[in-house]
Amino acid sequence: MKLLLQNIKALLPEDGTLAVRECSVGVEGDKIAFVGQTPPGFAPDKTILGEGRLVIPGLVNAHTHAYMTIFRNRADDLPFNQWLFENILPMEDRLQSGDSYWGALLAACEMLRGGTTCYNDMYISTDENARAAVESGMRAVLSRGLVGESRSDPGGVDRLRQASDEIKAYRGAGDGRISFCLAPHAPYTCAPAYLEWIAETARELDVGIHIHLGESRAEIAGLQEKYGKTPFALVESTGLLALPTVAAHCVYMTQEDIAIAARTGMCVATNPVSNLKLANGFAPVPQLLAAGVNVALGTDGAASNNALNMFRELNFLCLLHKGNQEDAQSVTAAQGLHIATLGGAAALGLGEQTGSIEPGKKADLAILNIRQSHWYPHSNLLAALCYGAQGSEVETVLVDGEILLEDGAFTRLDEERIRYEVQRISDRICKH
Amino acid sequence: MKLLLQNIKALLPEDGTLAVRECSVGVEGDKIAFVGQTPPGFAPDKTILGEGRLVIPGLVNAHTHAYMTIFRNRADDLPFNQWLFENILPMEDRLQSGDSYWGALLAACEMLRGGTTCYNDMYISTDENARAAVESGMRAVLSRGLVGESRSDPGGVDRLRQASDEIKAYRGAGDGRISFCLAPHAPYTCAPAYLEWIAETARELDVGIHIHLGESRAEIAGLQEKYGKTPFALVESTGLLALPTVAAHCVYMTQEDIAIAARTGMCVATNPVSNLKLANGFAPVPQLLAAGVNVALGTDGAASNNALNMFRELNFLCLLHKGNQEDAQSVTAAQGLHIATLGGAAALGLGEQTGSIEPGKKADLAILNIRQSHWYPHSNLLAALCYGAQGSEVETVLVDGEILLEDGAFTRLDEERIRYEVQRISDRICKH
Repeated sequence: MKLLLQNIKALLPEDGTLAVRECSVGVEGDKIAFVGQTPPGFAPDKTILGEGRLVIPGLVNAHTHAYMTIFRNRADDLPFNQWLFENILPMEDRLQSGDSYWGALLAACEMLRGGTTCYNDMYISTDENARAAVESGMRAVLSRGLVGESRSDPGGVDRLRQASDEIKAYRGAGDGRISFCLAPHAPYTCAPAYLEWIAETARELDVGIHIHLGESRAEIAGLQEKYGKTPFALVESTGLLALPTVAAHCVYMTQEDIAIAARTGMCVATNPVSNLKLANGFAPVPQLLAAGVNVALGTDGAASNNALNMFRELNFLCLLHKGNQEDAQSVTAAQGLHIATLGGAAALGLGEQTGSIEPGKKADLAILNIRQSHWYPHSNLLAALCYGAQGSEVETVLVDGEILLEDGAFTRLDEERIRYEVQRISDRICKH
Repeated sequence: MKLLLQNIKALLPEDGTLAVRECSVGVEGDKIAFVGQTPPGFAPDKTILGEGRLVIPGLVNAHTHAYMTIFRNRADDLPFNQWLFENILPMEDRLQSGDSYWGALLAACEMLRGGTTCYNDMYISTDENARAAVESGMRAVLSRGLVGESRSDPGGVDRLRQASDEIKAYRGAGDGRISFCLAPHAPYTCAPAYLEWIAETARELDVGIHIHLGESRAEIAGLQEKYGKTPFALVESTGLLALPTVAAHCVYMTQEDIAIAARTGMCVATNPVSNLKLANGFAPVPQLLAAGVNVALGTDGAASNNALNMFRELNFLCLLHKGNQEDAQSVTAAQGLHIATLGGAAALGLGEQTGSIEPGKKADLAILNIRQSHWYPHSNLLAALCYGAQGSEVETVLVDGEILLEDGAFTRLDEERIRYEVQRISDRICKH
């Protein structure tokens, strides 16, 4: 299909930063064909008029647990241990076959409605999650959360073997939209010997790493006591950071930890809302940016957010550090938008494919209706995207050139059914 | 008119906190007639079916500058002095007669669309602001910002006389929806002698006070150097806090300042987003609540926010302090919702009239469509309101029993025209 976005405001890369320019954007097949003037002879099958609209690269949710929509608004205003051990884990234990499929589809509905086209997921059931990701039409990097002690711990062995088999079976599904990585859950649930083995396996499979690192003070204290190291130093010593790595959270980092990230190329997926909600605090995002670390943005799961709204996450990202650092120029709108798009794509190894509006890239796009009172006057639209957008402005979303949401209606997903199924599952789980 | 909200989920006061219960809510004339079962003989002119809907008390924006929508997204990611002196004040100087009327109307459009029914405004032109407030149908407390040195400073004398005359002329406008207070801008722009005079005048006029207090470190340092006092101690010494007072911001407070607020009954309008955006930091909201101070919530003006979205503000309120205090139970959903509704109403002296859904109170209501993916599963709706709501869920809004927004369409306001006029004004001002 050939699609023309005619005379539309577009968020484009310009001089090493981002700018909004009026232009036309052409899509042909799964790719962006041109940005600028419509070339003679381009005969679109469909034209979207740009008046009152803004097109942006689809947002990249660099750390989430999609199926956790099932637990949304079921455990709030609770201390971490009570939240996790008395609420989330018991609910997870009551999940049945098929449940996480519906949870992941609800996440897809919410993410697409908020302009997110790509997500990096750590989950518990590959089959169901891969099926949901393929059916949703979204781009996704999937990974089964791994927990283990060593190469001879039977549970750990089973989990890593299962993850490896699943990667071989499913990689490249959904016309190549689905890719994989290995996901050691965290250094406090994976012993160093197990992390070493995961690093070796990832190298053999040619996949990257997705891990939780430095999320809480308790984690830092526990690892310090056990190994005399920070999570970052510990993980580096296992060889894990020699692989392309997305480290979620990274709230507690020393100067040396930041230097480790910079020299290993480790990418940080910051999760500002989840870090607030679970009372962990503020990641050193300005310091990471200053050190040249690639920062991406994620919502974490709906159990600790409680939304998967990347505009809201962006809003927190660009405001929090200003207050916390007492520096009004900390994480500017342009920096935030880079982090939420190309920063995320690059972290997932997809920087050549998605994350910016450029000819030759995949047509992963979100089109916003900006004829809304909270967007007026139309002036600095970068600021509007960061400081005013709600997410509800998104009306049309494309992934791989395919329209998945059109004027607010899904083309692939049966949203009513998905909501019904998740309500049913959640009610069943919470009856206990 | 008699309106029936039939079998709807409603946010209700219960046992000293808030809870969501399914019930019917009847409106007769400007008041809530009943909450619970529909009494026999209640014959509604109009019925709204509750299925998939949630009714909440209209939100109270306890500190804003409505006309500043004109400057939205015109000065971002800038240090405070550059923001204020090089951008905002020069733009304010270029405002012409009629401009703030349109700016205030755009603010009304945005606030109503986000479920806000009442606002506390500090502005520069009473005539235009009163006209906009009356026409919008909203409930409002208006106040002209005052700056002055003493009872003999000609500018200060003029401003206070003008404010007093305007209060006498306009109070009770809009069928009593419009009330007034006196608004000394801040202790760094009003000398103590002038504050004393304002306090006396407020007592004579029987109005309260609206003031900026303790917003920035620079303010604290300046007053300490000049008077050897904190802003709170200084203002208390002028007699101002003996009046019903709404103090905006209150970021920097000592223990003694919090004690001053508690013993004088001073209400704090916290502005979390503005305090982050202008790099001021975090108000001591948990400490204020612990001390029994009545806390209200405000967006501040669109120039430093950049939205007037009280759901977003509530979201920041309930998340920020959890992270900053490292306490996941700091400012719970129920506390946040109280602050955003009855806390605000009480701060404005309107606690008997609005801020909760109770028979006999004014029918100031917002009805949300919660059949949206980011609200599923429907479980704890207090958590959903605080941690997931975008504001865009609001479909119908009543003030004084009158429907001002119906299924997303304004009944009084010409939103297209308002946007057009504000765009024109903003473009003119920024051409310089």
